[in-house]
Amino acid sequence: MFFAVIPAGGSGTRLWPLSRAGHPKFLHPLTGTPSSLLQATVERLGPLTTPDHTIVVTGAAHVAAVARQLVEVPEENILVEPTPRDSCAAIALAAAIIAEREPAALMGSFAADHLIGDPQRWVETVRRAIVGAQQGLLMTIGIKPTRPETGYGYLQFGEPVGDGPVHRVEEFKEKPPAAVAETYLRSGHHLWNASMFVWRTDVFLAELARQQPELHAGLTRIARAWDSRERDEVLHEVWPTLPKISVDYAVMEGAAAAGRVGTVPGDFGWNDVGDFHTLGDVLPGDQAGNVVVTGESAETKPVVLLHDTEGLVVVPQSGRLVAALGVRDLVVVDTPDALMICPRERAQDVKKLVDTLKQRGDEKYV
Amino acid sequence: MFFAVIPAGGSGTRLWPLSRAGHPKFLHPLTGTPSSLLQATVERLGPLTTPDHTIVVTGAAHVAAVARQLVEVPEENILVEPTPRDSCAAIALAAAIIAEREPAALMGSFAADHLIGDPQRWVETVRRAIVGAQQGLLMTIGIKPTRPETGYGYLQFGEPVGDGPVHRVEEFKEKPPAAVAETYLRSGHHLWNASMFVWRTDVFLAELARQQPELHAGLTRIARAWDSRERDEVLHEVWPTLPKISVDYAVMEGAAAAGRVGTVPGDFGWNDVGDFHTLGDVLPGDQAGNVVVTGESAETKPVVLLHDTEGLVVVPQSGRLVAALGVRDLVVVDTPDALMICPRERAQDVKKLVDTLKQRGDEKYV
Repeated sequence: MFFAVIPAGGSGTRLWPLSRAGHPKFLHPLTGTPSSLLQATVERLGPLTTPDHTIVVTGAAHVAAVARQLVEVPEENILVEPTPRDSCAAIALAAAIIAEREPAALMGSFAADHLIGDPQRWVETVRRAIVGAQQGLLMTIGIKPTRPETGYGYLQFGEPVGDGPVHRVEEFKEKPPAAVAETYLRSGHHLWNASMFVWRTDVFLAELARQQPELHAGLTRIARAWDSRERDEVLHEVWPTLPKISVDYAVMEGAAAAGRVGTVPGDFGWNDVGDFHTLGDVLPGDQAGNVVVTGESAETKPVVLLHDTEGLVVVPQSGRLVAALGVRDLVVVDTPDALMICPRERAQDVKKLVDTLKQRGDEKYV
Repeated sequence: MFFAVIPAGGSGTRLWPLSRAGHPKFLHPLTGTPSSLLQATVERLGPLTTPDHTIVVTGAAHVAAVARQLVEVPEENILVEPTPRDSCAAIALAAAIIAEREPAALMGSFAADHLIGDPQRWVETVRRAIVGAQQGLLMTIGIKPTRPETGYGYLQFGEPVGDGPVHRVEEFKEKPPAAVAETYLRSGHHLWNASMFVWRTDVFLAELARQQPELHAGLTRIARAWDSRERDEVLHEVWPTLPKISVDYAVMEGAAAAGRVGTVPGDFGWNDVGDFHTLGDVLPGDQAGNVVVTGESAETKPVVLLHDTEGLVVVPQSGRLVAALGVRDLVVVDTPDALMICPRERAQDVKKLVDTLKQRGDEKYV
């Protein structure tokens, strides 16, 4: 049976003021349906696994919200990180706990805050990755690039492994400058690194032990204590000592250098919902390209009045009337205590507003 | 003693969603100070008259708010129109009631919702108009045009009366097309009609009787009953029968044709606060020309975060944080139940949003 691990962390400051430290991106219905990004992630896993085999790793501040959004996932499958320690600790914690139950179990790790346009093709791609994982590779699902994106890391892949769809990953590439991104786009041998992984837990944990012995030892201690009375004691003793490092940097880069990483190219409308501009590109709009991001419950049903506007991304989440006249390509995010307006092309800079608020001591808005 | 009449009507739909049918423009602090436009109008009259001699004519829906804003004006000086019947009925009602007390009293009529940049020069101009009124002219204060404005009516004036500053008004001109407005600007004989009047009540009422005998008869009946037990009965019988007409059209145009209207040119920074763009032009801004229209009480003290913006007009009246990034020349009006965004150059079209809301049956926002 396939285990699905969902690391649910990160506050998504470029989606402020919708996304907040206390109510981050993955809890919001940014999917064009009433489902939150987290809920859509679990729904998408339906053909691959069961809620019993779905494990969410999240921060203490978000456990309650996660538990309420995912009523079908058993409580013991919601793992609480005492503090954020980046993706390696989160994913390896889940891997170690799964390995306690089933040492050679297959698992996949899928971010809680990405959008997938074609869930069926995504499932087919994961199934192909599972085949590679069964052969003992650390599989990563790469995304076929559609533009010379400089905001993502890349996977450089080589020849197929056997006659299957799996290719060996030669190297993980950092976010490239524009000229390099252009060559990646044309090479036919580069994929976007979407941090989507499939592997056998024993293979992953062995590679973790080889490259990050301290992390491996700590997480093994925690996993062994997990189902005992010592869980809290061990967790609070060991967790703060774990290195803060991403799984890509801690394990995957070194594993690729050792020839242990495979990939299957994916082409299923992947979007990391990095900012409101991106969100507007992926959700359906009206004839003038205005996208109204709804999805909250009926009691806060948004009232929007757009008159002679084009290309807006409107996020009406306060229940108030949002009226716009004669504007184009703006982002308008309306929440109960804060309003944000910027051009779509400046959507990445929303982070700066959050920085300024922190500097001003206006933490209550962050 | 000089009586000041303040017609306080009109909802100011181009200032939506700040100005509402239930809480119109003149009640709002759009002055750059905590004073509302209405309060600033009364303050400005300080050197000319007393609250005892200040009369406000307003609709039933706004009496309570007017009474609370103008605590120094006696209750009996707040005249309530049962229904709006345009400016002639409102001003003539006040004139007829004043005439019951002092038949030849001097009165001036000053809109409740205009801004005056230099109140002292304004007082000096009114004093010059009073001299003309004492000579038996219906005086109107014209504004020296500073641009070929097509949104106002004009006064065409002739030679001085005697050696004073008073000129006879030859004709009232409708809002002109642009080319005509250009000739008015250059002629040296045209002023904007700001509907600011000064006259002896007996002179005005005689002219009203000559041109609008029905209105005169009705208002005389009402004024005679005003301080009696029959006030309500007579008011509700007669008022609905009065013609709906502006004082300019009903009296001033005909009086000018008969050579009975004088004017003194005014140059005191007059602004009719017609829309948010205009408001942004008249109130002080920051170095980048962003104008934040504050003035509400401390409990709704606005929090505004502007990052790399220019020429904004921000009206934060909900107490929420208003954050804007990388936008320019926009109007952003934030109220507890509605938000409105438009370019400053489209500020006149805000009226269309109100029309649409009415058509949609969303009266609660209007």
